[in-house]
Amino acid sequence: MKKKLKLGLFGFGCVGQGLYHVLHETHGVKAEIKKICVKDHHKQRPIDVSFFTYDAAEILEDSEIDVVVELIDDAKAAFEIIKKAVENGKHVVTANKKMLAEHLEEIYELQKKYDRSILYEGAVCGSIPILRNLEEYYDNDMITSIEGIFNGSTNYILTKVFEERKTYIEALKAAQDLGFAESDPSLDVEGYDPKFKLTIAIAHTFGAFVKPENIINVGIQKISEVDLKYAKENDLTIKLVARAYKIDGSIYGFVAPQFIPADHMLANVRNEYNAVLVEGAFAEKQVFIGKGAGSYPTGSAVLSDISALTFDYRYEYKKYTQGDAFPFSNEAFVDVVISSPEGSLITNRDFDNFKGGYQGKGFQYLHGTISLEKLKEWSQWDDLSVILAPTPNLVGASQIKKGERLSA
Amino acid sequence: MKKKLKLGLFGFGCVGQGLYHVLHETHGVKAEIKKICVKDHHKQRPIDVSFFTYDAAEILEDSEIDVVVELIDDAKAAFEIIKKAVENGKHVVTANKKMLAEHLEEIYELQKKYDRSILYEGAVCGSIPILRNLEEYYDNDMITSIEGIFNGSTNYILTKVFEERKTYIEALKAAQDLGFAESDPSLDVEGYDPKFKLTIAIAHTFGAFVKPENIINVGIQKISEVDLKYAKENDLTIKLVARAYKIDGSIYGFVAPQFIPADHMLANVRNEYNAVLVEGAFAEKQVFIGKGAGSYPTGSAVLSDISALTFDYRYEYKKYTQGDAFPFSNEAFVDVVISSPEGSLITNRDFDNFKGGYQGKGFQYLHGTISLEKLKEWSQWDDLSVILAPTPNLVGASQIKKGERLSA
Repeated sequence: MKKKLKLGLFGFGCVGQGLYHVLHETHGVKAEIKKICVKDHHKQRPIDVSFFTYDAAEILEDSEIDVVVELIDDAKAAFEIIKKAVENGKHVVTANKKMLAEHLEEIYELQKKYDRSILYEGAVCGSIPILRNLEEYYDNDMITSIEGIFNGSTNYILTKVFEERKTYIEALKAAQDLGFAESDPSLDVEGYDPKFKLTIAIAHTFGAFVKPENIINVGIQKISEVDLKYAKENDLTIKLVARAYKIDGSIYGFVAPQFIPADHMLANVRNEYNAVLVEGAFAEKQVFIGKGAGSYPTGSAVLSDISALTFDYRYEYKKYTQGDAFPFSNEAFVDVVISSPEGSLITNRDFDNFKGGYQGKGFQYLHGTISLEKLKEWSQWDDLSVILAPTPNLVGASQIKKGERLSA
Repeated sequence: MKKKLKLGLFGFGCVGQGLYHVLHETHGVKAEIKKICVKDHHKQRPIDVSFFTYDAAEILEDSEIDVVVELIDDAKAAFEIIKKAVENGKHVVTANKKMLAEHLEEIYELQKKYDRSILYEGAVCGSIPILRNLEEYYDNDMITSIEGIFNGSTNYILTKVFEERKTYIEALKAAQDLGFAESDPSLDVEGYDPKFKLTIAIAHTFGAFVKPENIINVGIQKISEVDLKYAKENDLTIKLVARAYKIDGSIYGFVAPQFIPADHMLANVRNEYNAVLVEGAFAEKQVFIGKGAGSYPTGSAVLSDISALTFDYRYEYKKYTQGDAFPFSNEAFVDVVISSPEGSLITNRDFDNFKGGYQGKGFQYLHGTISLEKLKEWSQWDDLSVILAPTPNLVGASQIKKGERLSA
């Protein structure tokens, strides 16, 4: 039943090498690497030089190659490769979250137009099979929210900062040394990387194609000693949480750091581990935890996609094709804790619903409800850090309009 | 592409009613209930009487019915229903773990012989899609172990005992009132129910059909105040853990309570939640958490199986058919903590490797390595409780033979 697939790889970094090893140590997948296209002529390669080419056409125009595995850093070049590959009748496996997030609707259309499959499990939360589960298992469950730790390197940093009292800089350096952090760390620490993954997850959870620039992302780079102190005093930890949820007729979603109680299921998700919490009408709460970074975990997700292609698997995008997607909106409200030096410009009157605060030793904490718009604005201010409250109390604009809560 | 399936149900208890509601509140699954076979003529039914029959043949002989959904308590009767259904050309969905565990190899043969599908995701850890993931996603990953909290009612009881300081009897009563406990609570509290699930999981993880009577199960019924005290003093909790693992050429597996450190991923899995921790060579550690009991969570798993039948899904039992299954063995060693009244018959010399102990206030704790055989024997003694150590240090007999550890 299964056919032996010939693979053409683009890129041979961390994930590519992981895939190579995984593929050679397992016997279950009927697939072999025929060619690997790389950029750098001078780099020492860990495997035989005959595998390598510097000419994309050697893969894209090779009619013997069934599957293009795209594992390069450059999102723009990656999209061109994928487009060409599919036009030339090849299936594609990719782990390029930025490219996918920016082009997801085109990726969907390409698959339809050329009757080819583009799979990308490795792009969202590394080894966690979240897309496959959303596609297949939650087919019939009305999902109300998806949230979690979507970025391994920031989680690694936060773990080291909290548990080993490393400084932020030390922890970032350690994450980079281990290969968990992207080459440009701002993608991780400013929350872009988890946002790209969230964008992809939203399509498979709620059937909506959202542009990543429409989703608000707040990073961890402004978390201060004062926040850590607040966390420790209240038996909390801090995680960078990506979330999307459905309220009434709209979908909301954003990325922001959040205080997490010690007994929360996300609290014990440490280091480079990721976690996805799906909530549905029937299955209720489901959590998936697994390594979100590293060559083997991501390589194994890529291999699972390749394996799925041996039996002609493709994403169905059921929630989209069923046509009951809701519009995406940023008109929502959340509960946050603001920490800042005493005397900062923000007062209780700036909250849509002020819930309390205190100050001392030169710092002040304010707790209350604000709009996502304000969350975005305040997160860009100097000397201010905005962290979601342990129970962030997500409220849609529709509920506000009905006057159900909030008193400005 | 999808066909509309006609369902015949056996049983209309908690899960059956959950399924009925889930099926009626979702529109994604092309399936409808035609007939429900129940035993009790006098019971008040929450839906129209025209659905019901008291004659199994009305479903089994109805050529219009495509799928038999078996949701009764009686394992023996369930197996007869399933056999007949498959012989009559029907697919089957069941959540009967006892029946499955006892007849799994026959169930596998039946599917092959009659070219029909028998699906049972709801039988293992309720809403957690663990079988589907083991079958599909971990196809190519060499799994080394699977373990976790496989029983919702004992986890509920342990949570209430630990966090709300309820007595064991109060907590059991509460679990039964909520419908989490089986009609015969000994199946849960003595560890039979998680053992049945483990038996099924072993087939899909390691490709071995093991008889449940060959798997050792120790329950929670002998956990004492003294154990709770030990746990609290050492920042531990206690969970009933089912586990199977591969060492060298053998598969081992058993169910027993275990001390769990507060920062362990299983520590925050509370109440009726279940968790499955899969460890593989490439994906490394993966955790799945979800409700393991309750009408909706289990109903949603049953519905997912029905939905899968609309596109002719069946388990492939790849690890079995690939023929590389290892033999199951009980010749293994684990680290345990024994608590007993002072002066009990066990001394440090009864351990294969004694690691320490202390006594006082009329009680004694002993910590060390014992064989699974001894674990089973001691767990049956009066006035003694045997709980796995926080890091149970699993060792196969082969390693002992090589003299790598243990000094008796």
